[in-house]
Amino acid sequence: MCRWMAWFGQPVLIEELVFKTQHGIVDQSLHARMGAEPTNGDGFGLGWYGGGEGPGVYRSVAPAWSDENLREIAAHVESPLFFTHVRAAIGSPVQQTNCHPFRHGDWLFVHNGYIGDFPALRRELMMVLNPHRFAEVHGSTDTEVVFHMALAFGLEHDPINALEQAVWFVENTAHRLGIAPMVQATFGMSDGETLWAVRYATEGPARSLFASADVDAIHRLYPDNARLERLGADDRLIVSEPVADLPGVWEEIPPGTAVTVRRGGVLEQRPFVPRRIASPEAEPALARALDA
Amino acid sequence: MCRWMAWFGQPVLIEELVFKTQHGIVDQSLHARMGAEPTNGDGFGLGWYGGGEGPGVYRSVAPAWSDENLREIAAHVESPLFFTHVRAAIGSPVQQTNCHPFRHGDWLFVHNGYIGDFPALRRELMMVLNPHRFAEVHGSTDTEVVFHMALAFGLEHDPINALEQAVWFVENTAHRLGIAPMVQATFGMSDGETLWAVRYATEGPARSLFASADVDAIHRLYPDNARLERLGADDRLIVSEPVADLPGVWEEIPPGTAVTVRRGGVLEQRPFVPRRIASPEAEPALARALDA
Amino acid sequence: MCRWMAWFGQPVLIEELVFKTQHGIVDQSLHARMGAEPTNGDGFGLGWYGGGEGPGVYRSVAPAWSDENLREIAAHVESPLFFTHVRAAIGSPVQQTNCHPFRHGDWLFVHNGYIGDFPALRRELMMVLNPHRFAEVHGSTDTEVVFHMALAFGLEHDPINALEQAVWFVENTAHRLGIAPMVQATFGMSDGETLWAVRYATEGPARSLFASADVDAIHRLYPDNARLERLGADDRLIVSEPVADLPGVWEEIPPGTAVTVRRGGVLEQRPFVPRRIASPEAEPALARALDA
Amino acid sequence: MCRWMAWFGQPVLIEELVFKTQHGIVDQSLHARMGAEPTNGDGFGLGWYGGGEGPGVYRSVAPAWSDENLREIAAHVESPLFFTHVRAAIGSPVQQTNCHPFRHGDWLFVHNGYIGDFPALRRELMMVLNPHRFAEVHGSTDTEVVFHMALAFGLEHDPINALEQAVWFVENTAHRLGIAPMVQATFGMSDGETLWAVRYATEGPARSLFASADVDAIHRLYPDNARLERLGADDRLIVSEPVADLPGVWEEIPPGTAVTVRRGGVLEQRPFVPRRIASPEAEPALARALDA
Repeated sequence: MCRWMAWFGQPVLIEELVFKTQHGIVDQSLHARMGAEPTNGDGFGLGWYGGGEGPGVYRSVAPAWSDENLREIAAHVESPLFFTHVRAAIGSPVQQTNCHPFRHGDWLFVHNGYIGDFPALRRELMMVLNPHRFAEVHGSTDTEVVFHMALAFGLEHDPINALEQAVWFVENTAHRLGIAPMVQATFGMSDGETLWAVRYATEGPARSLFASADVDAIHRLYPDNARLERLGADDRLIVSEPVADLPGVWEEIPPGTAVTVRRGGVLEQRPFVPRRIASPEAEPALARALDA
Repeated sequence: MCRWMAWFGQPVLIEELVFKTQHGIVDQSLHARMGAEPTNGDGFGLGWYGGGEGPGVYRSVAPAWSDENLREIAAHVESPLFFTHVRAAIGSPVQQTNCHPFRHGDWLFVHNGYIGDFPALRRELMMVLNPHRFAEVHGSTDTEVVFHMALAFGLEHDPINALEQAVWFVENTAHRLGIAPMVQATFGMSDGETLWAVRYATEGPARSLFASADVDAIHRLYPDNARLERLGADDRLIVSEPVADLPGVWEEIPPGTAVTVRRGGVLEQRPFVPRRIASPEAEPALARALDA
Repeated sequence: MCRWMAWFGQPVLIEELVFKTQHGIVDQSLHARMGAEPTNGDGFGLGWYGGGEGPGVYRSVAPAWSDENLREIAAHVESPLFFTHVRAAIGSPVQQTNCHPFRHGDWLFVHNGYIGDFPALRRELMMVLNPHRFAEVHGSTDTEVVFHMALAFGLEHDPINALEQAVWFVENTAHRLGIAPMVQATFGMSDGETLWAVRYATEGPARSLFASADVDAIHRLYPDNARLERLGADDRLIVSEPVADLPGVWEEIPPGTAVTVRRGGVLEQRPFVPRRIASPEAEPALARALDA
Repeated sequence: MCRWMAWFGQPVLIEELVFKTQHGIVDQSLHARMGAEPTNGDGFGLGWYGGGEGPGVYRSVAPAWSDENLREIAAHVESPLFFTHVRAAIGSPVQQTNCHPFRHGDWLFVHNGYIGDFPALRRELMMVLNPHRFAEVHGSTDTEVVFHMALAFGLEHDPINALEQAVWFVENTAHRLGIAPMVQATFGMSDGETLWAVRYATEGPARSLFASADVDAIHRLYPDNARLERLGADDRLIVSEPVADLPGVWEEIPPGTAVTVRRGGVLEQRPFVPRRIASPEAEPALARALDA
């Protein structure tokens, strides 16, 4: 069980959203309300765009609530697009390489959830990766493997399709090995230009995921709220759970849904359906894995 | 034994000076050439101005050479004025609160050197601090105590005088206790507007300290060096030891000297002479300590 | 808010009590039931007697629940007398030197609770310490200061009296400075031969503290419990909160009480009354502080 | 480049060999004399037998020279058979799961050296592992992969043969992929009953490795050395480089050699020759990899 949030909009000091909200991600690290466990103290990560080339990533094994350096960076770095993630480890070690976000080139990737029976699947899933991608996997989480699988399936060109294929491959591999497939996931990802988020569960209730409402709607609901007044038309938040108790501000993203957020606050939804898609990039990866 | 550097000039990505120089501070953490020990692996710190209110500070107990987060911050944060420091602990624990720079309000403070017989002096020196300042000392280094003593003596209004008084008080206290006084120090400090550096030893050779030369002089010396060409008239570096083998670029700051660097690359020198100076701020602190 | 436990009896693998009980200290680090906060994730410590000279101390800033090394040590080290402590920091940094137990020579010391307005008192309290003791304080907790004050007052010769004097001095200093005195504390300490525990609050309810009952009584209560059967006449546990739901096994130590546990399971109680006691050791320390 | 040592003999406090020798492993972490780099500051590990079930492992990312906990454990734990290892990372992250010794059941495994072009080989090498073994690899070092390959080839029944097969497979895989094969290695391993050590390089000079001489020979050489007098007939040290400047005490293990140390100080040598050996355990692993 983990919690994450993403901001996309006007440049803000990161602390505005991470520390200075009523129930921000750092508060969630101690007191999550919608997760399986209230405590997410097994490390955290921050990935941000703006300044230098590509995204910066700060990851630590300390609990988010006590990390002085996170407080410092959040108070002194502005960004128009960033992710934060607090981790509750389930099985894999508490180490920096297991903290989200994961990065490849300009891409950042976060995940809340799990792959059922991952230890039994890990080898077969990593077959999808060519030697170069395989060597890039430094940690031992399911998330890092899913990210690199999706990269092998073309995430950099069509992220949602590639992720659908990756989830399909996880479920398909479980079937092949006689294991009950289970992918529990909210995913967040970005290339610095667009933000994508996914909510999905192979079966049963999916992990929670919310988007902030249209800014006009928010302003009509809370005409006297000074903080919300600063929100502009370009601003969107995607969160595992609401960061403030403001009815009407948070819209639940339905299970089985992929969301695309573009500059200007544009938010589009479409169904997220794991499936095999023939594509020039995916074929060699699948061949590598399925023929093995 | 530690190593530090300070940059004051045009805004640059921190990595330009920390990682991308021939013999930058991270290289010095493994291979210092002018210090008592080649290894400075007992933590490090980075303090920078720009973005948010006051300076940001990133400190870690990991060796600078292996800290992934330092690499990330350095590659994605720009600053016109920053310090980095690599530590070789002598006696006090390797912990974040013992890493430099130390901060108070807008001020940053770094130190290379030591106070002789500090454990025997620590109580008497901390007497100078009123209860509020006393409670701000979270670590166990001599540096943090000197910094707070200088604050008690008026550092925020006249930093060099206050530091002269602090060093005098250390030497005076040693005398009173029958201990041979020894302050070995290069200090660096800033309020975000001006940069001060000091080189001093009670006796014997002082720790090394250098300033980069006047930019015009550098350009005349190396007309074809592309990196140096980017240096502007406003740019100055202060370093424990040269970060590149470029004869003529580094000017040794003489022992017993205080240097003031102002915007525009202005560098002024004056003698640094520890002494008691009657001042409205220093008197109560001295009374507190000497009458105790 | 912290949690601690002490074992004194037959040598056992530390994991028996730290990991293999229903609601042991590691479980309490995530799910304390009787404290102000359920989470005690700001570091932990283990201090044990047996093997080598004096006690060994293992302290870490990682949460107890995820520290692999704690698991290893607990699974491979046996001890007849040990303390473990999980920390919830209130104000002071999460660093190894702020983790309990604290050690001096053969002595170990743990604490749950706080000194009210400690930052305002810290300087005056540390005046009690002579320069040598002053230099031994490496962290910034109230506990470490209380421990060294008690040492200055003769803890090594008469621990309860010295601790009564230390608590008296804290309360007295607060009065002198016009601060409402408040010491909230359960203390545990040992010299390797005897175990002492104290429960005290200046006013209001004191933090919880329990001792395991007489072994015969436990055996009569649970004649068929295999784990409890292994308990011998020499075995006693002192705990912040019960480590298992076994009615009759845990006896609440009353507020304002000091408990002494000797070999053979002997447990004696007497009132704990903070007061000034003239003693050859305490006088110079008090003079140092009160005349200052 | 790393450094390691192993002790097999009478039970000793670990600090005797780790801290209290002239040039012990902790000194080597700062000042190695025979390695490619003097600094081995990227974490360390201690694996010991005695107390509890199977070996205990303490691993940390802190440099060995500054880790207080290592000092504590070494001063309070006795063992008749233990390994310590200090790491100089080359490429893979500084994280606990990349520190040696690695453990599986009763087995411990350490390594100094590297596999040439490991990132290009990693995927093909890990093919040897069945899904269960694959999931046990938590870090990203070459060593951990070699260990699990050797386990797949029967290390628990015939450790030297299995390791010869593992090294052969690394070299063979490199050949197949058109990569110049290079295994640089000294290995140490134990099951708690026997200690094995190997020195090997595919080509060129092999990393250094020494065994302590026969105790009678040592006593004849240094009849007046009090420390050496305590050495008994059962005692043997295997070290990357001598831990004291005592001519005649250290015997270089020749390149291409495997050494077996049994209780009673028995030390046997035989050639170490990487090769394919048909065995019931190795065949399925090879089939898995070669037919893939």
